[in-house]
Amino acid sequence: MAKPPVISVVGFSNVGKTTLMVKLIRELKRRGYRVATIKHDVHGFQMDTPGKDSWKHAEAGSDCVVVSSPDRLAVIRRLDRELTLDEIVATLPDVDIVLTEGYKRGDKPKIEVSRAARGTGLLCSEDELIALATDQKHDVRVPQFDLDDAEGIVNLLERLYLRE
Amino acid sequence: MAKPPVISVVGFSNVGKTTLMVKLIRELKRRGYRVATIKHDVHGFQMDTPGKDSWKHAEAGSDCVVVSSPDRLAVIRRLDRELTLDEIVATLPDVDIVLTEGYKRGDKPKIEVSRAARGTGLLCSEDELIALATDQKHDVRVPQFDLDDAEGIVNLLERLYLRE
Repeated sequence: MAKPPVISVVGFSNVGKTTLMVKLIRELKRRGYRVATIKHDVHGFQMDTPGKDSWKHAEAGSDCVVVSSPDRLAVIRRLDRELTLDEIVATLPDVDIVLTEGYKRGDKPKIEVSRAARGTGLLCSEDELIALATDQKHDVRVPQFDLDDAEGIVNLLERLYLRE
Repeated sequence: MAKPPVISVVGFSNVGKTTLMVKLIRELKRRGYRVATIKHDVHGFQMDTPGKDSWKHAEAGSDCVVVSSPDRLAVIRRLDRELTLDEIVATLPDVDIVLTEGYKRGDKPKIEVSRAARGTGLLCSEDELIALATDQKHDVRVPQFDLDDAEGIVNLLERLYLRE
């Protein structure tokens, strides 16, 4: 099983990372790729309820709670320390591409989302970026796409990472 | 990494399987074991929200959605077919014991929960069972425990599966 390419969608908070993620996922799925997505939640997340019963297992102290259904498998692991992106990717099933939301300090190629309403600066340096998704012009030598140009960005991803 | 023992807690619906699971998990954790639990949800579960944003990834079609936080890792995989118990166990991190809620048709040693208020019959045959948790007397040659005797049941699990 070859390692899939891992691309990080980054940007300041509330800039529209999830919105772009959703558009990229839809476009990649439309083209038939198997996609995994990883959301970096630095604040920890609330334990919600894929099947309320089973979540009682977690509250009772289970280190790894699994819910298995005919079409989905949900797993929540309790961790002693946060896993690195590479450690997470190593546990994934076989996919063609992994998109992360966040991991701005990771070492993966990045697409930065930038919106004028949230500021004019960029989080990343030119050499970290493979693309910008933005509604303003930035003075960097990186391909720049409209915020909703998932097709253009996926064309770039295909060219860089998904062709044999 | 040795395969952990896998024990299934089974019984008719609403008999109290989750309640017993929770008690067993607490008792196993009190004794310092690493525990994984698997809930068999034959009806499929609702997609709920460990971090609402990320669950939009799933709705957009992501085949494998991960949420990573400092103390927990959540993964939801879309499946073409239901995984077997052995396939699921093979994906788990290193634990001392796996308890399943359900999998009455699986081939793992079983603890059946039985309550007079839900009927007098048993789901399993004598040779499938390692224990009964019940508020009534059954005429089977299997150790029988009170419904809340997690300590007694875990003593049995230790003796059968957890001692070197």
